[in-house]
Amino acid sequence: MRGLLELKSLETNKIVELIEYAIKLKNGYAVKYPDKKVATLFFENSTRTHYSFQCALMNLGINVISWDVERSSVQKGETLYDTVKTFESLGVDAVVIRSSVDEYYKELENINIPIFNGGDGKSNHPTQSLLDLMTIYEEYGHFDGLKCCIIGDVAHSRVAHTNIEIMERLGMKVYISGPNEFNDNCAPFLSLDEALEQMDVIMLLRVQFERLEGDMTLTNEEYFKEYGLTLDRVAKMKDNAIIMHPAPVNRGVEIADEVVECEKSRIFKQMTNGVFVRMAAISSVFEGKL
Amino acid sequence: MRGLLELKSLETNKIVELIEYAIKLKNGYAVKYPDKKVATLFFENSTRTHYSFQCALMNLGINVISWDVERSSVQKGETLYDTVKTFESLGVDAVVIRSSVDEYYKELENINIPIFNGGDGKSNHPTQSLLDLMTIYEEYGHFDGLKCCIIGDVAHSRVAHTNIEIMERLGMKVYISGPNEFNDNCAPFLSLDEALEQMDVIMLLRVQFERLEGDMTLTNEEYFKEYGLTLDRVAKMKDNAIIMHPAPVNRGVEIADEVVECEKSRIFKQMTNGVFVRMAAISSVFEGKL
Amino acid sequence: MRGLLELKSLETNKIVELIEYAIKLKNGYAVKYPDKKVATLFFENSTRTHYSFQCALMNLGINVISWDVERSSVQKGETLYDTVKTFESLGVDAVVIRSSVDEYYKELENINIPIFNGGDGKSNHPTQSLLDLMTIYEEYGHFDGLKCCIIGDVAHSRVAHTNIEIMERLGMKVYISGPNEFNDNCAPFLSLDEALEQMDVIMLLRVQFERLEGDMTLTNEEYFKEYGLTLDRVAKMKDNAIIMHPAPVNRGVEIADEVVECEKSRIFKQMTNGVFVRMAAISSVFEGKL
Repeated sequence: MRGLLELKSLETNKIVELIEYAIKLKNGYAVKYPDKKVATLFFENSTRTHYSFQCALMNLGINVISWDVERSSVQKGETLYDTVKTFESLGVDAVVIRSSVDEYYKELENINIPIFNGGDGKSNHPTQSLLDLMTIYEEYGHFDGLKCCIIGDVAHSRVAHTNIEIMERLGMKVYISGPNEFNDNCAPFLSLDEALEQMDVIMLLRVQFERLEGDMTLTNEEYFKEYGLTLDRVAKMKDNAIIMHPAPVNRGVEIADEVVECEKSRIFKQMTNGVFVRMAAISSVFEGKL
Repeated sequence: MRGLLELKSLETNKIVELIEYAIKLKNGYAVKYPDKKVATLFFENSTRTHYSFQCALMNLGINVISWDVERSSVQKGETLYDTVKTFESLGVDAVVIRSSVDEYYKELENINIPIFNGGDGKSNHPTQSLLDLMTIYEEYGHFDGLKCCIIGDVAHSRVAHTNIEIMERLGMKVYISGPNEFNDNCAPFLSLDEALEQMDVIMLLRVQFERLEGDMTLTNEEYFKEYGLTLDRVAKMKDNAIIMHPAPVNRGVEIADEVVECEKSRIFKQMTNGVFVRMAAISSVFEGKL
Repeated sequence: MRGLLELKSLETNKIVELIEYAIKLKNGYAVKYPDKKVATLFFENSTRTHYSFQCALMNLGINVISWDVERSSVQKGETLYDTVKTFESLGVDAVVIRSSVDEYYKELENINIPIFNGGDGKSNHPTQSLLDLMTIYEEYGHFDGLKCCIIGDVAHSRVAHTNIEIMERLGMKVYISGPNEFNDNCAPFLSLDEALEQMDVIMLLRVQFERLEGDMTLTNEEYFKEYGLTLDRVAKMKDNAIIMHPAPVNRGVEIADEVVECEKSRIFKQMTNGVFVRMAAISSVFEGKL
């Protein structure tokens, strides 16, 4: 099984290579695969990841088959394996999958075409991690010694767990902050003020109402009051420090309206970079380099 | 904010220019933008407008991203602005939007890519107006002095209000007819017989059951009996007069089955022209002429 | 009305020609229609047929408009005729339609663009029949004298009825087997053991829970025990005999898990062939040969 499933199983130099390839593509390097077809299979709602992959594929001249879960044979009880095997049989050159099932790809070991993981449950979201890393690398030109604090619902975030492991491998120092109930001790804990004053990167997480199912004891107003990134709190950050967020943002919950596009924010730049890391991953796989 | 949002804010000569460009494209003039990507964001059901834009984009060699509202992050509460900003960040070159919110684009002033309005609530539907005008212009070669009566639910129609203002600017004389309860006095009122006997263009509106919510006091049968365009009523029309309708038609309500494709009907020609006015609008924006 | 609506109205030599053209395309023969646009209108859930048509169209360089029934004007009560006439008016070069209505195309006689039938109720599914035939022809190099037994819910299957008529015309001997309640006497009946021992082709049908609505008196477990194709039963088959199934399969109902990809199974090859027969049909229509 080839493709990009987990970032944690990639060697560090491969990760840096992917990021540098993404930057090269952002700078105008063109590569096209006009005879290829790729299907995007999204079993969960998504705007950014789904359409970012579509844009990446289009930029590479690849035909996109956007699969409609609700009007498909999955409604007739077809398994994930049979669905993906079907697309392989139809001559599709690769698939992009997002699913709520952790490590869904373990069922797909007999699939012969590359699989790009667009997120699996709370476990992995490799292209999201790559775009975060690319945004940091573009900003500072290196990773070594940079300090990053991830603030928010760490416990429920696939982004956070992958990011922490890779960032540490790349020489960064990673911390977590936010409500204690979300602290799963995957990294040292800081108070919000410590985080604001000391970090190079403030990485906010989304309060994921749709996954929490009543797990959060704070109201949105309380969350915003205690942890929401306001302009006053931004003022405490280091001069060159940046703000990141995987989006979609909850304006007025984890972030104030005015902060979303403030000078320190890289939130929309992250989305732009997402297209290029996905192009890099897809192209690397088709070139046999991944 | 560029693009095509409202027709009423365009100068009259710009409108005529767009129509003449659409006719040139219909006659085979080819222009292609193979490196561009455009996303279509439809928050309301549509066949004609949505797929007409898709065809227009494909004819221009543009990659189409057809956004699926129901499987998107709008389900997670994302705002319209954040959704459009996301597509801008993904490198999309323009968006087409239909929404039930009047003048939704006022929220989008900080968006830097062109926006094409595929209809906003009861306010504007500029490409629908353009295709109506193109159909009249193709028929008569001019607008000056032509008489047009809009029949039906004028009060709830975005098409009607825009059309009346522009048609008058182009030198046409516009009237309205139909049930008194839909008469909002936006133009002089005619009886149905007066309209049939005197007009060059009979422009029917759809009875929009899904918007009326019990507002119409007539049953469908009563509406058809009193205002439905039957072959008998068509026989009263002037020799060269034409019938228009924005579609989808309610056969047996505002129009008889046999009239939909009768000799005087331009209903399906309007759809054909819709593709060319949209090509003209998109191309004009990308050429910096709009 | 042109296109491919029913296989039964095609002459036998035309059918063989289509299959041979599909094999030629599978072997690498390339033909492209980059200026054409085709819309796929699926009123029933489908993975294989819908995406197979999409892949076929993409392989032919054709622009695909994938129509979204649920977000369309059909929700406003538009008829099938008006919907298809709309796509014709928009300049679409052909449509692919799947509908639960038997012979829906009889309403579409005034449509001027080609229509490809992706399945109509229990009546026809011409490209499915063609892919079955292509798979048999690839295996044996001829049809004459081959014995095929169709096992399962023959009574509810559009595939079965078309296949039987055509296979007999091509010189094959066709039988049916399975639960007596599904036996509609459209071909001689065999016991399961007779079928396994004597046939060149075992063609399983899907137990179509979603269509049966309580018609089947057997439970899934009973069906599997009495008629499910297990490895033990496969062992009774002739050495060169093959297993076919239109998919999606119900693993553990009509077929055992281990049999789906066993050596005798051609199930995923059928899907691959489906793309090529659809390319052959579309290309033949555009070349004026069908």
